[in-house]
Amino acid sequence: MPRSNSFSTNMRIRFPVLAILLQVIIIILFGIFVRYQPADRWSEPSVNIGLYPIFQDVHVMIFIGFGFLMTFLKKYGFSSVGINLLIAALGLQWGILLQGFWHMASNNVHNTIESMITADFSTAAVLISFGAILGKTSPVQMLILTIFEITIFVCNEHLVVNVLKATDTGASMTIHAFGAYFGLAVARLLYRPGLKNGHPKEGSVYHSDLFAMIGTLFLWLFWPSFNSAIAKSAGEQQKAIMNTYFSLAACTVTTFAFSILVEHRGKLDMVHIQNATLAGGVAVGSCADLDILPVGALLIGSIAGVISVLGYKYLSPLLASKLKIQDTCGVHNLHGLPGLLGGIASIIAAAVQVNSNVSVGMQAAALGCSVAIAIVGGAFTGLIVSLPFLGQPPDQNCYDDSVYWEIPIQGGAPLGSNIDYEEDPSKLTVEA
Amino acid sequence: MPRSNSFSTNMRIRFPVLAILLQVIIIILFGIFVRYQPADRWSEPSVNIGLYPIFQDVHVMIFIGFGFLMTFLKKYGFSSVGINLLIAALGLQWGILLQGFWHMASNNVHNTIESMITADFSTAAVLISFGAILGKTSPVQMLILTIFEITIFVCNEHLVVNVLKATDTGASMTIHAFGAYFGLAVARLLYRPGLKNGHPKEGSVYHSDLFAMIGTLFLWLFWPSFNSAIAKSAGEQQKAIMNTYFSLAACTVTTFAFSILVEHRGKLDMVHIQNATLAGGVAVGSCADLDILPVGALLIGSIAGVISVLGYKYLSPLLASKLKIQDTCGVHNLHGLPGLLGGIASIIAAAVQVNSNVSVGMQAAALGCSVAIAIVGGAFTGLIVSLPFLGQPPDQNCYDDSVYWEIPIQGGAPLGSNIDYEEDPSKLTVEA
Amino acid sequence: MPRSNSFSTNMRIRFPVLAILLQVIIIILFGIFVRYQPADRWSEPSVNIGLYPIFQDVHVMIFIGFGFLMTFLKKYGFSSVGINLLIAALGLQWGILLQGFWHMASNNVHNTIESMITADFSTAAVLISFGAILGKTSPVQMLILTIFEITIFVCNEHLVVNVLKATDTGASMTIHAFGAYFGLAVARLLYRPGLKNGHPKEGSVYHSDLFAMIGTLFLWLFWPSFNSAIAKSAGEQQKAIMNTYFSLAACTVTTFAFSILVEHRGKLDMVHIQNATLAGGVAVGSCADLDILPVGALLIGSIAGVISVLGYKYLSPLLASKLKIQDTCGVHNLHGLPGLLGGIASIIAAAVQVNSNVSVGMQAAALGCSVAIAIVGGAFTGLIVSLPFLGQPPDQNCYDDSVYWEIPIQGGAPLGSNIDYEEDPSKLTVEA
Repeated sequence: MPRSNSFSTNMRIRFPVLAILLQVIIIILFGIFVRYQPADRWSEPSVNIGLYPIFQDVHVMIFIGFGFLMTFLKKYGFSSVGINLLIAALGLQWGILLQGFWHMASNNVHNTIESMITADFSTAAVLISFGAILGKTSPVQMLILTIFEITIFVCNEHLVVNVLKATDTGASMTIHAFGAYFGLAVARLLYRPGLKNGHPKEGSVYHSDLFAMIGTLFLWLFWPSFNSAIAKSAGEQQKAIMNTYFSLAACTVTTFAFSILVEHRGKLDMVHIQNATLAGGVAVGSCADLDILPVGALLIGSIAGVISVLGYKYLSPLLASKLKIQDTCGVHNLHGLPGLLGGIASIIAAAVQVNSNVSVGMQAAALGCSVAIAIVGGAFTGLIVSLPFLGQPPDQNCYDDSVYWEIPIQGGAPLGSNIDYEEDPSKLTVEA
Repeated sequence: MPRSNSFSTNMRIRFPVLAILLQVIIIILFGIFVRYQPADRWSEPSVNIGLYPIFQDVHVMIFIGFGFLMTFLKKYGFSSVGINLLIAALGLQWGILLQGFWHMASNNVHNTIESMITADFSTAAVLISFGAILGKTSPVQMLILTIFEITIFVCNEHLVVNVLKATDTGASMTIHAFGAYFGLAVARLLYRPGLKNGHPKEGSVYHSDLFAMIGTLFLWLFWPSFNSAIAKSAGEQQKAIMNTYFSLAACTVTTFAFSILVEHRGKLDMVHIQNATLAGGVAVGSCADLDILPVGALLIGSIAGVISVLGYKYLSPLLASKLKIQDTCGVHNLHGLPGLLGGIASIIAAAVQVNSNVSVGMQAAALGCSVAIAIVGGAFTGLIVSLPFLGQPPDQNCYDDSVYWEIPIQGGAPLGSNIDYEEDPSKLTVEA
Repeated sequence: MPRSNSFSTNMRIRFPVLAILLQVIIIILFGIFVRYQPADRWSEPSVNIGLYPIFQDVHVMIFIGFGFLMTFLKKYGFSSVGINLLIAALGLQWGILLQGFWHMASNNVHNTIESMITADFSTAAVLISFGAILGKTSPVQMLILTIFEITIFVCNEHLVVNVLKATDTGASMTIHAFGAYFGLAVARLLYRPGLKNGHPKEGSVYHSDLFAMIGTLFLWLFWPSFNSAIAKSAGEQQKAIMNTYFSLAACTVTTFAFSILVEHRGKLDMVHIQNATLAGGVAVGSCADLDILPVGALLIGSIAGVISVLGYKYLSPLLASKLKIQDTCGVHNLHGLPGLLGGIASIIAAAVQVNSNVSVGMQAAALGCSVAIAIVGGAFTGLIVSLPFLGQPPDQNCYDDSVYWEIPIQGGAPLGSNIDYEEDPSKLTVEA
């Protein structure tokens, strides 16, 4: 088969067939299994409308936060924010089903506000993995990855929470470390030798960096909601809110300090500000509802900012050159390392007995199995999505929306017909 | 009267006189009629602070959602987001008054959080109509349209909700279908033969499409709040939240599928992603609080995405060429068709008796009168706002902020005086 | 010492040393003093989770609202949104400590959701001052200013609220007037004769003005939460919400009217729309929870819009030329004048006895001491931060991110090596 054929990127048939097939399957499964919660539970505290503002904060993080954070690439904003929306919209339906299957009552999945939160959570893992391979996959590949990753994610989550009974309220391990190592394993399988010296479109322009800051800030702001959403009591919920708020604040200060320190010209790097400022939210996740005191949260956040900046500066180049893992968004530095830190912090918290019901062994087991299942599951999924007929773009079209999107050119008049209207050169783009 | 005169677009006198006059009238009417709710009602469930987060979600939809959704045009972002703010700020005051007049107690309009929500709702209808005529009207025309449309909207809403006693919690009929057909009727009256072959500025550039996605996503995220805001019980509210969440998710998947399917090159079209992904929120509105089951919501959303994409692809060109309706934002595809679908879904829901108190006849009457009053009211309002002295822009200045806005040019130094500062060509714009 | 040396802008050592030092001090103080609230208070109304959605609205205002509002400058968006984040992240930790010191119980600072709100408030004063000197300071200067201003702010707030027992729920005086006059005093000390004829980068481009509108709108939307966040009862809270909503709506209409009126060509000015539309939120602050009736709120808002537009048009040029105060964002017009108006409105409200416990004398004293302490404190802080080794940029590098930030240039390929990739000229920037 000629190479040009194996890399055909036209989605006209493949994508609609797969997307509609998945949606039909989901509709059938919903018809069979999914119901509203029983009428007498509408006003129970654990499922009631009081959780709704928290749900909305998480919802904003998933769709605006992750979506815009990835728009930093100069020519990949449509895919970042658009495919992010597609993944999350498909993923939350699949998450409702699979998470529900673990908690069925009389063969029904009962939908609550809380299950909408955990379904959003399950999509977060996929969106983290998406960051690792951003710019190098087709929409068809992403549909398949979404279905596989959420399936594996739900199993690991069940193992950690219900079997090991580990604590991971803010999901440092089950979402962040899991999503990062899953994505890195996929990235390893999709390694492109042709990109080892970089790509002209793998970078930002001034305004794309500002769009990305919309994502950063909404993630930063609502992270206390993320880490407290499934806390069990009002006290634990408020503790998780406070710990996350403090951890992020300290992390931001150390991120700025180290961003300047590691650059020989003493300047701030937007990549660090967009990403490492969030590492405090990741790292405090597993301990968020524990009695770590405000000062504990500050310490965790301060360390998270430092390791995240150092990761971007020194580790990412090594991962690419030595381990052949091309991590577009540096998810290893934002979710991987801080996720490990979060797991380790929870082990330490268990060791010093901040809460009596947290066990060192179970926290360690939870961290280990989250990383291991992520790597194995990611490698398996990477094998599947690297099948050639899934429409992966050729190297020269990576990081470029125009492969899969209509890109605006001169509107209304033939290109070049009237010089008066060509005052904005940004509309001139290259069609693949 | 010479044509150049009839098209004078200078707003210096006309706009301030009209705007201040309207504000003074509103202040006088507020002074006479509007009061806080009685002190003993501050803590009643139906009016209390518990609704406030829902109100804020709706508020974000109106000002950020609608405002940024319309910034897709390359040179009309100031007007989209700015005139949207003006319309909504004026409209909500007028809405508080007129909606209050239907529910006066001892000659007073009592203001509650709930009346702030319904006032925001009334502006939504105007903003939908604004989308149909975007780029082709003056700020003076929009002040007049706001006052007229909200007045007619409030009467239709009273007819549907209080006289017919139809169900329309998420307002598929009373806001979306109404706003769309009202706007289309105005667009018909403002038909411009000179634009039938398009206009060089009627299109997007890369970054304007990303700004529009901010609007899309905040609408998408908070639509469950919109559809549940005035639900009557906690159970109905949560049902409306869940149904809308599911409908939007399914709609998004089918929108992506059909966007690729209808393009011969198999690429995604940003117009569809920005708009049709929201059709599921519109279409599930009338049934949102009914027992349609999660699977019912998925079905409604799936269909809404399909008809919206097909509308953009095939129906909008026909509306323009055959019916002389130039619908700038395609509101017929986002609000009109899905609004009809929402009404029809509520008729079917009544027919299969999902809830015993919903009547087929009253739902059908509500849909019919909403569309009919919108078309007649819109045509009448279109006649008024097409009066020549209202400052409508000439064809060549349509879709161009510079007619009504100071546009940034070279700042601080005379244009062209120092080539070093001209690194960004986007600041060079054409003054009208 | 040669001038070029005194203006060395390299931050490599100075910034990390100071930032890490401050963070370490804060960690130590937190370790000694800051604790969660006692376990039995988790469910008290005044501290409980019910305030959390309000906190999140305020949080969005601080980080997105202030951050993006200042991105209007064409080449200073990274600093606007990035240094805003840094100031707020450092400031909220310092605010928690200092505000807590006034309310210690058994030598502990007890953290609640409410104290997170007031800590965010304390950063707002600094961010307002930041607006006055935007583009003319280094990150090191801003760290120092943050620590000094919050310290002085907390003392003034204590004086106004606890000693004078004045009413200032929405903080027209203690945040807005204070932050503005503090910033203007600093700006006076940092006066740059070299910029008296303007600067080529002190202006906007089309898309930077749209980014700024993101900030404007989130401030506008959530201002009712800001003004009601610390209201004492549910009734006062809802009154503050309603009064602010109405004041902003009326202010928006008069802002549009006067923006067009004062421009000889009758066009709207984006500076007014971005800023003066918010003056209604500032001006109604001190009276927000008083019985001023909806019509009172409309009047205050209407006047605020007018004086703010007139300030931008006529007063700012005078401040620069006569008083040598170069106010980059015009904070005097958005926070200073409307803050004074808010204080005066509260004096009038006390005089007509809308609430029996508000005293004319105490309101006047609160206004006077807020302005006086701000000016003296700002002048003192301005002296400190004008020390030459703090890395202030030279005149020609003002309003330019590239002094302190890595700015994206051609990514992945040597600049100019491949003309195919140079379709977007905005990535070509000037390095300092």
